[in-house]
Amino acid sequence: MSTFTRLVRFLAKDGQIYYGDALLPSGVSDIAKATKARVIQGDIFGQYRVTDQVAEIKLLLAPLARKDIGTVRCLGLNYEQHAKESNLPIPKYPVLFFKPLTSISAPGDDIPIPRIAQEGEGLDYECELVVIIGKEASNIPESKALDYVLGYAVGNDVSHRDWQIKRGGGQWGLGKGFDGWAPFGPGIVSSSAIADPNALHISTKLNGQTVQSSSTKDMIFGVAKTIAFLSQGTTLLPGDLIFTGTPQGVGMGRKPALWLKDGDQVEVCLEGVGSCTNRVVFEKPSSKL
Amino acid sequence: MSTFTRLVRFLAKDGQIYYGDALLPSGVSDIAKATKARVIQGDIFGQYRVTDQVAEIKLLLAPLARKDIGTVRCLGLNYEQHAKESNLPIPKYPVLFFKPLTSISAPGDDIPIPRIAQEGEGLDYECELVVIIGKEASNIPESKALDYVLGYAVGNDVSHRDWQIKRGGGQWGLGKGFDGWAPFGPGIVSSSAIADPNALHISTKLNGQTVQSSSTKDMIFGVAKTIAFLSQGTTLLPGDLIFTGTPQGVGMGRKPALWLKDGDQVEVCLEGVGSCTNRVVFEKPSSKL
Repeated sequence: MSTFTRLVRFLAKDGQIYYGDALLPSGVSDIAKATKARVIQGDIFGQYRVTDQVAEIKLLLAPLARKDIGTVRCLGLNYEQHAKESNLPIPKYPVLFFKPLTSISAPGDDIPIPRIAQEGEGLDYECELVVIIGKEASNIPESKALDYVLGYAVGNDVSHRDWQIKRGGGQWGLGKGFDGWAPFGPGIVSSSAIADPNALHISTKLNGQTVQSSSTKDMIFGVAKTIAFLSQGTTLLPGDLIFTGTPQGVGMGRKPALWLKDGDQVEVCLEGVGSCTNRVVFEKPSSKL
Repeated sequence: MSTFTRLVRFLAKDGQIYYGDALLPSGVSDIAKATKARVIQGDIFGQYRVTDQVAEIKLLLAPLARKDIGTVRCLGLNYEQHAKESNLPIPKYPVLFFKPLTSISAPGDDIPIPRIAQEGEGLDYECELVVIIGKEASNIPESKALDYVLGYAVGNDVSHRDWQIKRGGGQWGLGKGFDGWAPFGPGIVSSSAIADPNALHISTKLNGQTVQSSSTKDMIFGVAKTIAFLSQGTTLLPGDLIFTGTPQGVGMGRKPALWLKDGDQVEVCLEGVGSCTNRVVFEKPSSKL
């Protein structure tokens, strides 16, 4: 085997951290349930090899190490029904914002809610298809855009609506950028294994109850169009992530609003990829403050 | 010598790229005029040594290699007089946005204006004090915030007002984030060599004419307050950059507005640090498009 199908990064039972190609039990499609993987050697953005060495997975990590991640881009208002529930017009161009590297976390990690985000209202979930760029991409036409994709994952664009919308001066990054507020995983499914990234079911379960359930076909700017647009005058680099926006059903769009609470469990799911589950944990006052 | 005063990264006449501590000719304070530097060995964010080896500078590069830069944060509306010229209220909290890694460039580099940013109006300059984080910083009180600073540089937050404000859905990152739209340099002056980062003259010259001239004391949120605020619930990492906002005098604030044109030369200057000069170059249509 020369290329991966389901890239995972994991702590193995032998105590080592590896990149690997997940081996799923028969009848299982959620990478989060993988217990074994073929170890990958080399540079996953360059020359690598899926070996015959099978390692047992003790813990899935974020699918990319922080040193392998570049810039984290996110789209806002990129699903038609979500734009409608937000009472906002359909955007004419993709609405771009960014998250810092420290927001990235792994399936199973707690989502820490710092004191600053315990003020006010509006702690919310957003399931999103995450695109991982595999090759340097500059001024790419839409027809070739998917050639630059390493693969796809599912992520949660955790948001605090007061800081995002009211207190951030209109800029969304602060209220969406706290440590661990961009869990993604459980692995990266190769773009060659997903025929059309804009025909996948995507959903969120909050404490086991489905709160978002949609399809990536509701995206206003599909994956190829998004990459083509973002690459205009901007070089996308291997390891750059694009969170492509969330469908309807967020807490802010409900009547009454539904905000995350301490201890809540949030599971975001993407068809063909699997699930990423995280628990909301309010931080206690620190002696450092 | 064990610590640097003026960190530069440069191509030397011997063909090597080094980090170094700039040696300035007598009576010169602008690092951009340095012709020699003591070579630095080791990790500038960890253990390093300023050696006795003096190298001749052929070309100054961006003061940090891309692999040494983490997240690029920027503040908007952080000078009182600039908020006034923008007809916007003084923000209650710092207004945070981000730039991608590919926006970073060096003194002397061209500022490429891609086709997408040649549409519409509003190509603008913004001189800014740039803070370089030296140590991991999480939940830091204002009184200790400057201990986490490696040093200071000057940067240009190049902006396209139509994309920033009108076409970006209200999010500023796209219209400020094109390749090479965050030149910074000419070097990094150690925080130990700048007693008060909020008492420095800062200015911009456009084709030799002064268009911005102010002091960092006009900042609404000073450097220490900014770091303390941004570190709440967010871990700032060594190599993270913070562009701290621009004073009055931007092209958008003038009557009539003053927009950058193809071939313009922009020089941003910070007292005690020096100057970063770049030329605006409109890109020609590419055969790739």
